[in-house]
Amino acid sequence: MRGYIGLDIGGSKILGILYDESGEGILKIKKKTKAHEGLESVLEQLDKVLSGLMEAQDYTIGAVGAGVPGLVDAEGVVSFSPNLPFRNFDLKGHLKAEYGVEAYVGNDVNVAMYGEYARQQNPTVKNVVGLFVGTGVGGAIVIDGRLYIGRGAAAELGHMVVMENGAKCGCGAFGCLEAYASKTAITQYIKSHLERGGTSVLSGDLKGIFKSSLLEKAYESGDLITVEAVDRASRALGVAIGSLINIFHPDQIILGGGVISALGDVMLPRAQEVAKGHTMPGLFDTVGIELSSLGDEAGTYGGFALAKAIETL
Amino acid sequence: MRGYIGLDIGGSKILGILYDESGEGILKIKKKTKAHEGLESVLEQLDKVLSGLMEAQDYTIGAVGAGVPGLVDAEGVVSFSPNLPFRNFDLKGHLKAEYGVEAYVGNDVNVAMYGEYARQQNPTVKNVVGLFVGTGVGGAIVIDGRLYIGRGAAAELGHMVVMENGAKCGCGAFGCLEAYASKTAITQYIKSHLERGGTSVLSGDLKGIFKSSLLEKAYESGDLITVEAVDRASRALGVAIGSLINIFHPDQIILGGGVISALGDVMLPRAQEVAKGHTMPGLFDTVGIELSSLGDEAGTYGGFALAKAIETL
Repeated sequence: MRGYIGLDIGGSKILGILYDESGEGILKIKKKTKAHEGLESVLEQLDKVLSGLMEAQDYTIGAVGAGVPGLVDAEGVVSFSPNLPFRNFDLKGHLKAEYGVEAYVGNDVNVAMYGEYARQQNPTVKNVVGLFVGTGVGGAIVIDGRLYIGRGAAAELGHMVVMENGAKCGCGAFGCLEAYASKTAITQYIKSHLERGGTSVLSGDLKGIFKSSLLEKAYESGDLITVEAVDRASRALGVAIGSLINIFHPDQIILGGGVISALGDVMLPRAQEVAKGHTMPGLFDTVGIELSSLGDEAGTYGGFALAKAIETL
Repeated sequence: MRGYIGLDIGGSKILGILYDESGEGILKIKKKTKAHEGLESVLEQLDKVLSGLMEAQDYTIGAVGAGVPGLVDAEGVVSFSPNLPFRNFDLKGHLKAEYGVEAYVGNDVNVAMYGEYARQQNPTVKNVVGLFVGTGVGGAIVIDGRLYIGRGAAAELGHMVVMENGAKCGCGAFGCLEAYASKTAITQYIKSHLERGGTSVLSGDLKGIFKSSLLEKAYESGDLITVEAVDRASRALGVAIGSLINIFHPDQIILGGGVISALGDVMLPRAQEVAKGHTMPGLFDTVGIELSSLGDEAGTYGGFALAKAIETL
């Protein structure tokens, strides 16, 4: 039988799943990435995952689809990755040369959001915008059923400006969506309140970026500054969603990521309210807003769907 | 020989041009729209233009492409037009039934910007975002060489939010690009200054919206409030361009419209500076920013290009 491999190459682990033609997961292998040990180690770990999956009996691999955090061009070359030792590394070429398979290599958020899109198998949904709200904010654009990357780096939706001269963003600019809605921004907003002598149930837990589950708990306890920070994030998300509807008039907007998983039920109604106020008359109700449903396996499923698409395009 | 007709159906005039296969204009007819007289009159005027062009000897009409100000769906039905008596009017069906021709009917800004794109005949330019800054701000999106309209109303780029809770826009929302960069917004900004007792060389000319040529003259004379209003418009345009580059990473951004024609030389450098500050590292210099070059005939040329594309798609 024909099989396809979806790969999610993250900063800490590599997850690979062998799927059958229908998208059913057959075999799953997970290994540490060992990114700090350099390129050779990462490729060895990748080999453990791939070789293991390829040994599955009864399956001939049609193609491999992989998501990598970082900038990946249309030829599958990883120009740069903040968390992986890939610098202008031709990952697609590597997969072809070492394993004799066709491959799709893309940005991890793009691939995962494509997975969320493809999983629906809904032929009336062709144009989709995905927003991934986690430590940062990423995005993905599907046009006419295909992942759109423009000259390579499209869908940096976390860096849409929601406020001219607004909050400083990690990218160096001001007023980006990411500077309001990301877990990093929510954390900074709360910490800045504490530094000014404010109180919060989170004051005992100041190392690094707050976990989404911790923020969820603080929000549910009614912690005022957390509620404020989450509301601020929801509003920025709403402004961005409004702009995205006016720009793309898509069939669907899909929201995912750790912040949405933890706080989506409180953020979504607020974001929708704000988005509606920013959308051209008549458009808002024509666009479905969905929460991602694949969780940790969105990346590998997207890899599967893109691998399968190679053969049919 | 084979010919194609490009139609620009505006609120005050209908311009039609017969083009040969290479895009050379052969014959041009212009009539008043007579929009205030109702649908029948508009269709009669349209008939004068079309019949006249179709009488041209030696040309067999391959198809007609038309731009209409308003909301046009993918089937060529004009759902609504603010300045024309079209309400759910099947203009594409009308053209087919009355003249026996294939037709493309789209939003006027979309069609005109497609004309600017197509005119370049540059095979390396496939993904383009057009911004049209006039009385309002419109836009157009070309993906992989084709006009993208999403569910019908995409590319409402004037209603991207550049400032949460910002200036009130004609659409009812706050902080839209159009509320800063349009001629209407520039006029309102200057008038509001005058109402508070400020001075301006424009104070003698307060009826309606300032003509672009008048704004140009006031800017060149160093009129302080005009310089301020134009700078504010340029900054908002820069923020939007920065966001659009992060969203689309397109091959090109094309700027057009009356405000750009009159003030593009002062607005563009400022907008580019701001856009660069809002663009993800490395992206800005990969995107060409061009001024429109077709002027009044962008709409008909876009109609020609879209008509010709019907046959080749």
